[in-house]
Amino acid sequence: MKILAFGEVMMRLTPPQYKLIQQTDNVDLSFTGTGVNILSSLSHFGYETSMLTILPDNQVGRAAAGAIRSLGIKDEFVRYQGDHMGLYFLEMGFGNRPSEVTYLNRLASSFGESTLIDYDLATAVANSEVIHICGIALMLSEGTRQAAFKLAELAHQTGKKVCFDFNYRPSLNKHNSHEWVKQQFEAILPYCDIVIGGIRDLTELMDFKIPTELEGSIEQLAYVSQMFVKQYQLTYFAGTIRQKETTPSIRGFVTSNQEFALSQPMELQIYDRIGTGDAYAAGIITGMIEKWDNQKLVQFAINNAVLAHTTFGDSPLMRREQVEAFSQGNRGDVIR
Amino acid sequence: MKILAFGEVMMRLTPPQYKLIQQTDNVDLSFTGTGVNILSSLSHFGYETSMLTILPDNQVGRAAAGAIRSLGIKDEFVRYQGDHMGLYFLEMGFGNRPSEVTYLNRLASSFGESTLIDYDLATAVANSEVIHICGIALMLSEGTRQAAFKLAELAHQTGKKVCFDFNYRPSLNKHNSHEWVKQQFEAILPYCDIVIGGIRDLTELMDFKIPTELEGSIEQLAYVSQMFVKQYQLTYFAGTIRQKETTPSIRGFVTSNQEFALSQPMELQIYDRIGTGDAYAAGIITGMIEKWDNQKLVQFAINNAVLAHTTFGDSPLMRREQVEAFSQGNRGDVIR
Amino acid sequence: MKILAFGEVMMRLTPPQYKLIQQTDNVDLSFTGTGVNILSSLSHFGYETSMLTILPDNQVGRAAAGAIRSLGIKDEFVRYQGDHMGLYFLEMGFGNRPSEVTYLNRLASSFGESTLIDYDLATAVANSEVIHICGIALMLSEGTRQAAFKLAELAHQTGKKVCFDFNYRPSLNKHNSHEWVKQQFEAILPYCDIVIGGIRDLTELMDFKIPTELEGSIEQLAYVSQMFVKQYQLTYFAGTIRQKETTPSIRGFVTSNQEFALSQPMELQIYDRIGTGDAYAAGIITGMIEKWDNQKLVQFAINNAVLAHTTFGDSPLMRREQVEAFSQGNRGDVIR
Amino acid sequence: MKILAFGEVMMRLTPPQYKLIQQTDNVDLSFTGTGVNILSSLSHFGYETSMLTILPDNQVGRAAAGAIRSLGIKDEFVRYQGDHMGLYFLEMGFGNRPSEVTYLNRLASSFGESTLIDYDLATAVANSEVIHICGIALMLSEGTRQAAFKLAELAHQTGKKVCFDFNYRPSLNKHNSHEWVKQQFEAILPYCDIVIGGIRDLTELMDFKIPTELEGSIEQLAYVSQMFVKQYQLTYFAGTIRQKETTPSIRGFVTSNQEFALSQPMELQIYDRIGTGDAYAAGIITGMIEKWDNQKLVQFAINNAVLAHTTFGDSPLMRREQVEAFSQGNRGDVIR
Amino acid sequence: MKILAFGEVMMRLTPPQYKLIQQTDNVDLSFTGTGVNILSSLSHFGYETSMLTILPDNQVGRAAAGAIRSLGIKDEFVRYQGDHMGLYFLEMGFGNRPSEVTYLNRLASSFGESTLIDYDLATAVANSEVIHICGIALMLSEGTRQAAFKLAELAHQTGKKVCFDFNYRPSLNKHNSHEWVKQQFEAILPYCDIVIGGIRDLTELMDFKIPTELEGSIEQLAYVSQMFVKQYQLTYFAGTIRQKETTPSIRGFVTSNQEFALSQPMELQIYDRIGTGDAYAAGIITGMIEKWDNQKLVQFAINNAVLAHTTFGDSPLMRREQVEAFSQGNRGDVIR
Amino acid sequence: MKILAFGEVMMRLTPPQYKLIQQTDNVDLSFTGTGVNILSSLSHFGYETSMLTILPDNQVGRAAAGAIRSLGIKDEFVRYQGDHMGLYFLEMGFGNRPSEVTYLNRLASSFGESTLIDYDLATAVANSEVIHICGIALMLSEGTRQAAFKLAELAHQTGKKVCFDFNYRPSLNKHNSHEWVKQQFEAILPYCDIVIGGIRDLTELMDFKIPTELEGSIEQLAYVSQMFVKQYQLTYFAGTIRQKETTPSIRGFVTSNQEFALSQPMELQIYDRIGTGDAYAAGIITGMIEKWDNQKLVQFAINNAVLAHTTFGDSPLMRREQVEAFSQGNRGDVIR
Repeated sequence: MKILAFGEVMMRLTPPQYKLIQQTDNVDLSFTGTGVNILSSLSHFGYETSMLTILPDNQVGRAAAGAIRSLGIKDEFVRYQGDHMGLYFLEMGFGNRPSEVTYLNRLASSFGESTLIDYDLATAVANSEVIHICGIALMLSEGTRQAAFKLAELAHQTGKKVCFDFNYRPSLNKHNSHEWVKQQFEAILPYCDIVIGGIRDLTELMDFKIPTELEGSIEQLAYVSQMFVKQYQLTYFAGTIRQKETTPSIRGFVTSNQEFALSQPMELQIYDRIGTGDAYAAGIITGMIEKWDNQKLVQFAINNAVLAHTTFGDSPLMRREQVEAFSQGNRGDVIR
Repeated sequence: MKILAFGEVMMRLTPPQYKLIQQTDNVDLSFTGTGVNILSSLSHFGYETSMLTILPDNQVGRAAAGAIRSLGIKDEFVRYQGDHMGLYFLEMGFGNRPSEVTYLNRLASSFGESTLIDYDLATAVANSEVIHICGIALMLSEGTRQAAFKLAELAHQTGKKVCFDFNYRPSLNKHNSHEWVKQQFEAILPYCDIVIGGIRDLTELMDFKIPTELEGSIEQLAYVSQMFVKQYQLTYFAGTIRQKETTPSIRGFVTSNQEFALSQPMELQIYDRIGTGDAYAAGIITGMIEKWDNQKLVQFAINNAVLAHTTFGDSPLMRREQVEAFSQGNRGDVIR
Repeated sequence: MKILAFGEVMMRLTPPQYKLIQQTDNVDLSFTGTGVNILSSLSHFGYETSMLTILPDNQVGRAAAGAIRSLGIKDEFVRYQGDHMGLYFLEMGFGNRPSEVTYLNRLASSFGESTLIDYDLATAVANSEVIHICGIALMLSEGTRQAAFKLAELAHQTGKKVCFDFNYRPSLNKHNSHEWVKQQFEAILPYCDIVIGGIRDLTELMDFKIPTELEGSIEQLAYVSQMFVKQYQLTYFAGTIRQKETTPSIRGFVTSNQEFALSQPMELQIYDRIGTGDAYAAGIITGMIEKWDNQKLVQFAINNAVLAHTTFGDSPLMRREQVEAFSQGNRGDVIR
Repeated sequence: MKILAFGEVMMRLTPPQYKLIQQTDNVDLSFTGTGVNILSSLSHFGYETSMLTILPDNQVGRAAAGAIRSLGIKDEFVRYQGDHMGLYFLEMGFGNRPSEVTYLNRLASSFGESTLIDYDLATAVANSEVIHICGIALMLSEGTRQAAFKLAELAHQTGKKVCFDFNYRPSLNKHNSHEWVKQQFEAILPYCDIVIGGIRDLTELMDFKIPTELEGSIEQLAYVSQMFVKQYQLTYFAGTIRQKETTPSIRGFVTSNQEFALSQPMELQIYDRIGTGDAYAAGIITGMIEKWDNQKLVQFAINNAVLAHTTFGDSPLMRREQVEAFSQGNRGDVIR
Repeated sequence: MKILAFGEVMMRLTPPQYKLIQQTDNVDLSFTGTGVNILSSLSHFGYETSMLTILPDNQVGRAAAGAIRSLGIKDEFVRYQGDHMGLYFLEMGFGNRPSEVTYLNRLASSFGESTLIDYDLATAVANSEVIHICGIALMLSEGTRQAAFKLAELAHQTGKKVCFDFNYRPSLNKHNSHEWVKQQFEAILPYCDIVIGGIRDLTELMDFKIPTELEGSIEQLAYVSQMFVKQYQLTYFAGTIRQKETTPSIRGFVTSNQEFALSQPMELQIYDRIGTGDAYAAGIITGMIEKWDNQKLVQFAINNAVLAHTTFGDSPLMRREQVEAFSQGNRGDVIR
Repeated sequence: MKILAFGEVMMRLTPPQYKLIQQTDNVDLSFTGTGVNILSSLSHFGYETSMLTILPDNQVGRAAAGAIRSLGIKDEFVRYQGDHMGLYFLEMGFGNRPSEVTYLNRLASSFGESTLIDYDLATAVANSEVIHICGIALMLSEGTRQAAFKLAELAHQTGKKVCFDFNYRPSLNKHNSHEWVKQQFEAILPYCDIVIGGIRDLTELMDFKIPTELEGSIEQLAYVSQMFVKQYQLTYFAGTIRQKETTPSIRGFVTSNQEFALSQPMELQIYDRIGTGDAYAAGIITGMIEKWDNQKLVQFAINNAVLAHTTFGDSPLMRREQVEAFSQGNRGDVIR
């Protein structure tokens, strides 16, 4: 089973010891991105994975490729051209102080400036069984959008499973109308099997109506996501619900045609929140491949996400045994 | 609006990763002090600020000046002479283990050995609207005490706002009688507009009586601080109340002639406690300048202090927008 | 009063910032071991301590000796031969994610390959009043086992106090039968005065029966440990009970002939759990030497263990004053 | 005497310990740029300096401003807009292995996208006596070029000294014709007093002919640079000549109307070469302001450049006393 | 063209800043080994490479695999079993102070304890065109020796090129007779095409006689190595000659049936000497594959080795363009 | 053979990577001092050593004690009182850029404020055979001077060898007359056996006349030092001569009653120069104890000093075998 992801690779720069940028002469350097994160997690679960992207043709691009190989991701479909890579600073939050992300330019990146013809989509699809497409590709540039559309179409036509992640970033869409944005998503969804997102993606982006006659927000989510699954004939629509009352917690949901399943609510102890949604998506993909029942699937996925909050960096690194040990309540102790 | 602070600049050396001094061959180096901290915060709120101090005339003194400029503080009134700077080690606490401060010599510092004639007080006052004086200057040496008195007098006479912080450190006063100490504070208070302190400063240092007929400690504080405000015709007496039951929390108060205002009690998640009182003072000064009502003022100030517990280093670095977002309950999430 | 410990010195390699091994090009290096940890704590309580062990005859062994001297432990009975030292990686856990220990080879270490004749036990015993023996020596190799037996026998015969720690690691005993393992412990226990362990050491290793007619697990522990103390005529059997419901907590117990004493249950805030049991043992030894009543002893020991959870590294470093201040509720504040 | 510099501020990311990017998870972070470097040096020589530039309106831009203030440079003419800053990685060379610079996007930076109307040139010029303009501004974008032209014109008209640095980077001019490039330089040179460059700037960019009838390369440089100085009525044309035979060495030259002066050839011991040309320029500007004779000027400037090769980072940090002590042969010893 | 290497992967721990082990609480961590180093270099020259080895089945082994993938080496033939990996400390030398290597146990490593049946040699050979075998495998244990013999035999029989590196470490052969050692090498050499070594390998290990009738050491080397090449029908015998008179230098040689070729003597500037012989071997393999003449080959190989002295870590990382630029004298400057 | 040293322990703070103080937020921390350095070296040569000093009674003082124990120095005569320790910053030089030392206050240190009665000199002397006294103690304060005098007297009277080091720092003697300073040295020299110094100590401090009738500076040194040795009946007067022509070099000399011996001139490769004179002194003491002839002694001592230039930190760490291997020309290679 081979899993392909199409998307941007970014550089992340993180001041140490919860410092702000202005306090440090020294930052941690890593490479990340939705696709990288999902494949990192799947590779730690034992799957063969491969990244489809464009990296800059310089020392930075090559270092990025080394970093993703180190995570267990193949780079056979990585191409080198251009000379820029999107990057962001993460000032890690502590307690009630939120983490703060500062993006530097990602539009002019090698990936952002890539176009359909820069990718050998046919070969990439032919060599994969599951294809993940990050919604950011849809919004970043005309080139990445066309590549995403074509990839989804090709994958769907050849019977591969397509996993799509809304990953909607308003900051990348300041100049587009709501209608235009919606149309892009409408254009790709018919090719998809798994969609990762939240209720706001359905109601605010896709204009599904909230059934206000239903009382609880979970009932509303169940109803709307069932509508969404039916309309696009999805295998799963899945996402997480975050709560913050006394202590922060998270809960996973997955909607299939037959069922709306919810994980246990899980208390969060947050060290590094970035990439935890990707850990969840990787869990969902795993469950789909391994044909688990929805309840097992949603709990495994949320456990993977909970653990991802406790590790440094965007890319989830927990192996299957670690997630399963956590599922069985084996927590907080020393493992020797 | 330009704000001047008079006080000591110190060096802080911090072992990394919550280590003790004996565990590390490597320490974090920063420059700090009550005045530096308050001005750092005010500069992040958008004010023009300037430090009035003496630094050693060597590579350490010049590095200190660079560090305070980096925080947004002007150094036009910094003078270089002598060759020593007070310094302290901070062994950062974790959970229930307290942080531990180890001071090395601060009496023989360039600042500690400075005298009235080393400062051009007249120009400094003429260029400022608000002047902050740290109580440590009053206790450190005859020279810094005379400079503090003269500065307060000049500022008061020329209609500038004077903010004074008790900042009483028993370790600096081992050889002085209670009466002598009290007299020093009595000598400066008539020139002050804002005073930062706690109930113990009033009752133990200034010999105000606790009205034991009042039951609650807050009622007692309200009463005593009203007395204090009246006696010295202060605009504000302000401070914080720390509580530790199950989880540590903090609450701000401000007393003006008309009113005793209390902030919400705020739960604390503590990463680095040092300098948080200075964050509170900076909030109070901001509110005074911007003529906020007491309730808004005390809540903004305490929010600034709460956030200062979550950042590394003594000097508060949160911008106004960050404090306001926190006030609005926008916490713990990732800001993109 | 001089305290000797016999056991292995290991190297610990710790990725920084809660990273996993695969995420870092840089690890923290320290030297540790049950004996080192207990003596480190005792030396911080003011006792003269000395380590009896074999270190590799190379730069690593000499650095290890420097490290233990730095902790306040004498190295007059350290001998250098061979060229390997056991080592382990610690991936520090965060929140609910457990810490993970990865051992590299410790059997082929200079200590593991040592034999009885490598030690001058007679001199070491003659120069000490209390002798600590780590149970790992009993399980590691024939050589270390014979040395441990002989050391215990000699110490007992010459009227020295013997403290023994079960420290049972199943991973070191994959090839030995239960009976064989039990016999080794039975062979050393008659020489012992203090034994550190838990109920599972008594019931699973030593085959004591759980009195199921008693309801609570604490009642059962009290009963079984009394039986154990009587059978081997121990001064103390002592250990800790860990609980994890909403928040993790710990409780110490000590059983003597007259009494089963329990500490208060103490909430844990865990930064680095390794070595905390050794902190507890050091507290028990201190109480024995200073002839405290059981209640004072068990509370001091558990406080030392609680604080050890909040400091970096295996070796406890809190001085007596710090543990006592903590006992008196002086927590979480800044000490100046 | 106040000196203004107009130009780009960039971020520099440097792997530690001479590592390549792919070898590290941790990079040194600093802020740099021709203007920043020259002003840093001038500020360490005692001058008041100020940077005229645009920084991104985010945490990175604000940290950059703090960094330049820390160097002693005023930021009163810094404006914040946009959200990107040019950055580069420096893989530091060792011995015969060259350093390698990898630029990420600088065209889309806040500075690169700035236009004439973003700057209050009139005020900036009015407040300065010497104005430095970096040639990169001329080549980066239409906006920065127009601002550079206007600034030079304004400064010249109001009798301020204009210092211009060719700083020609072919990589920024892939799409422009030679003629077009030459015209840009021709347009700014009439406003200039000091020009920093090398013989190739004159012969390859400005199409001066090499007088092949003169034998030595130094004679040719003297001749051509005299021509250049006359044509544009410059006070100085100055630059460095690098040689590498057995050991690398450097020599400074300065051409004025009367004289072609050469420094001693100076042996180089290279730790960090970037920014050393800017150290040289700062020395020339200092000599011009202080009206030194050419020989003193060129030797001081080259000494500053030689020392800049031995310090970390782009921005020269040697104080006047340090350069002078070096001039007097006080080298390689410990200064206490 | 796919290149396979069989050999040990080790962990290297390096104190920073030229410190000794006893001076640091922090070490650099990397993974290395002759095979890893040669493949790293070949992968940076554009070849597909793959490592045939056994890694421990734990977090350390998996991190090692990630590290070699990051270098561009495939891990499809890596198997995980056992729990130990050989490791060494490198105290980096400076100037005339030599670097010092301290090995911890490598015999008990997963690789050292592996045997013939742990490897799927047939598949590995079938998928490769060039196979490198490190002489350390021959000396480490019976298991690795048998695997090395079988691999060489299989490769030779199926017409693959076999490259063998003496890599003789006396410390691994304390208990074997000279005759026994010689026999092992004699057993593998008939299968080899390229052998890497020095004159002492031929004269001291293989008992070739030094032709004392020839005067110069180079003439002697040429003569003996021709004898060696003829006897074992090698394509190449290659190695380096180190000289240290005033400045250290190195020279490469390669002996084929027709020719004894010598590179230019190259001055060395040494930052990290470990692995430089492997850089040389990678150059030789490259030349063999690309059928260069001996002179080009030996110069390219020695240039790669010279550059490897200037980079951190054992594994050579210079790309082909960098080596070629160096060959063309493009040294010591900044590459932008 | 037990060696005692009396003197100050200081803290050294060193910016990493040759940075200046203003460039770093992070400094290396170590503990040093002439006595510490000499004993560190002697302990690495196999001698029992012990430090006689006063450390601050706080976390810094205790960490300092741990650090010196780690170097192999006993702390049985260390006493804790006061709360300050002298400290200095070292900005490490590179190439021709000199290292720069910035002292912060050392007069107010626990050692500087100590007096005769704080030391149990009788016991310390009784337990030692060789006593080293640093000249800084003579100049620091009245208290340390009296202690130094008494210690020298006691040692001399009881037949112990006294080693004295001029270590003259003009910065500590700004207010004393030449006559006064000379008298202090005259008062201690009659008790001394070994004196470490240079020709300027004899001619400028002690007013010995330079025999200008002798031509070479070495002849002059030989003559003057013979005079000095005779006058004070010294066993040795020893020191180093530094030269800097093309490359820096060093040469050791030792003068005894019979002989003036010179080492070979040794080329220096300087990484960290501080403490190298102490390495030389340790070599002289070793030779005296082991009764070497002057030529062997002076060469061993200078080799130890040369190696000390190549290691990080003030305290020499080379073992006897390493110095001897260096003597035998075994340089620059990798030792495995």
